[in-house]
Amino acid sequence: MKFSTEIQVRFADMDAYGHLNHATFFTYLETARTIVFRNIFLDLMAKGHLLMVVKAECQYKHPIGPADRSIVSMQAEEIKRTRFTLSYQIHDGEGTIFAEAKTVMICFDEQRGKPVAIPLQLREAITQV
Amino acid sequence: MKFSTEIQVRFADMDAYGHLNHATFFTYLETARTIVFRNIFLDLMAKGHLLMVVKAECQYKHPIGPADRSIVSMQAEEIKRTRFTLSYQIHDGEGTIFAEAKTVMICFDEQRGKPVAIPLQLREAITQV
Amino acid sequence: MKFSTEIQVRFADMDAYGHLNHATFFTYLETARTIVFRNIFLDLMAKGHLLMVVKAECQYKHPIGPADRSIVSMQAEEIKRTRFTLSYQIHDGEGTIFAEAKTVMICFDEQRGKPVAIPLQLREAITQV
Amino acid sequence: MKFSTEIQVRFADMDAYGHLNHATFFTYLETARTIVFRNIFLDLMAKGHLLMVVKAECQYKHPIGPADRSIVSMQAEEIKRTRFTLSYQIHDGEGTIFAEAKTVMICFDEQRGKPVAIPLQLREAITQV
Repeated sequence: MKFSTEIQVRFADMDAYGHLNHATFFTYLETARTIVFRNIFLDLMAKGHLLMVVKAECQYKHPIGPADRSIVSMQAEEIKRTRFTLSYQIHDGEGTIFAEAKTVMICFDEQRGKPVAIPLQLREAITQV
Repeated sequence: MKFSTEIQVRFADMDAYGHLNHATFFTYLETARTIVFRNIFLDLMAKGHLLMVVKAECQYKHPIGPADRSIVSMQAEEIKRTRFTLSYQIHDGEGTIFAEAKTVMICFDEQRGKPVAIPLQLREAITQV
Repeated sequence: MKFSTEIQVRFADMDAYGHLNHATFFTYLETARTIVFRNIFLDLMAKGHLLMVVKAECQYKHPIGPADRSIVSMQAEEIKRTRFTLSYQIHDGEGTIFAEAKTVMICFDEQRGKPVAIPLQLREAITQV
Repeated sequence: MKFSTEIQVRFADMDAYGHLNHATFFTYLETARTIVFRNIFLDLMAKGHLLMVVKAECQYKHPIGPADRSIVSMQAEEIKRTRFTLSYQIHDGEGTIFAEAKTVMICFDEQRGKPVAIPLQLREAITQV
């Protein structure tokens, strides 16, 4: 996959089963997105353009424990006028895949109260080779 | 749907967009499951049988703000020998649907390191009319 | 103490030790504050007046597990012109005290970038008998 | 201060005020502790010796936003037989101090249900020059 970033695993991310709580996998994806596209993300936010998830799904393959390394790799899957799909793998960089996931994203104009066409800088960033 | 429970919306559940963070929707589903099936859930946990999510998906319809009421309704969709699917609606009880979601669950025996047949008490609870 | 509210204990609030994560005790206090003073809190927020914690402290007496009930009781300790202190007890309503805590709060005007005198409606609410 | 580690700031750590939620400052301290003393922390956990916070306090100096860098520096303040105090600074590495904090910690033997003398490896680690 095109983009990869390591997520700092926190003790508090674990739940009483001793593993990363299943909801927090989505937090890892979000953290990866906002790190990889950091400047664009912050620019859009300053303009009141919110990158919102309209659909999210995750298949859990292997639990993540407090001693595991966690890397999120991602790439754009499909880019339409106002929405795009990112697909992800959460893995340890050594062959263990923790999860596979997808999110469908829109860029929402807070003031006008509706989605806008995906900004060019974002479109270019997610499709770059 | 068969089972409903209200989730206490916390200020800290919101993110910098001012809405419930998208990952936290899954926390709401989990909280609803563990409240509705509370005794079974705690019994299973005491025995080292972990109710684990193997697949989760959510479609986001409407943002949840700090002043909103949030109710999770759910029902069993499909029950196989070792896994079952729950479907959910998160809504405000007055016609606004915030999200629709599904989770595929297994019951995992921590000591033996593998899924077990869904315990009878759980099977009965999720299929009860 | 004058004000009490029950906090919905979530499975995800626990950490890998199987107990409520110590940071989440402060989330429980915040949740209690925003429920007890709900209308005032939402009003202030709408005006860009943020209720901010400038100091927080907690003494942990007893761990909170996934099966425990958790009630936050609180009262105002000291009210100055621009800041006030709330003291709290987190307990189960049956004699077990989980924690004792204090927060010093200010009301911060986001636009002017500085604290304001505690609004009258809030001052009255926290001192009411 | 003797030990420093950078904490990966997550978008989801922010609350509806647009800043790091005040409870999450304590998560940052915990994350820093478990990174700096990682091997000892994981060893103790494997033995059922839980590093627990019995008292925590934080003074908030400056809000942390989604674009900020966050570094936790810490050092041991006082080391008794069964408890020790860590003091912390959360800062950006360029002169802005976000918070100053302290935690009093014990090492709790889960099976025996009581605190134990601070293990030698931990005592040495926190006092090392």
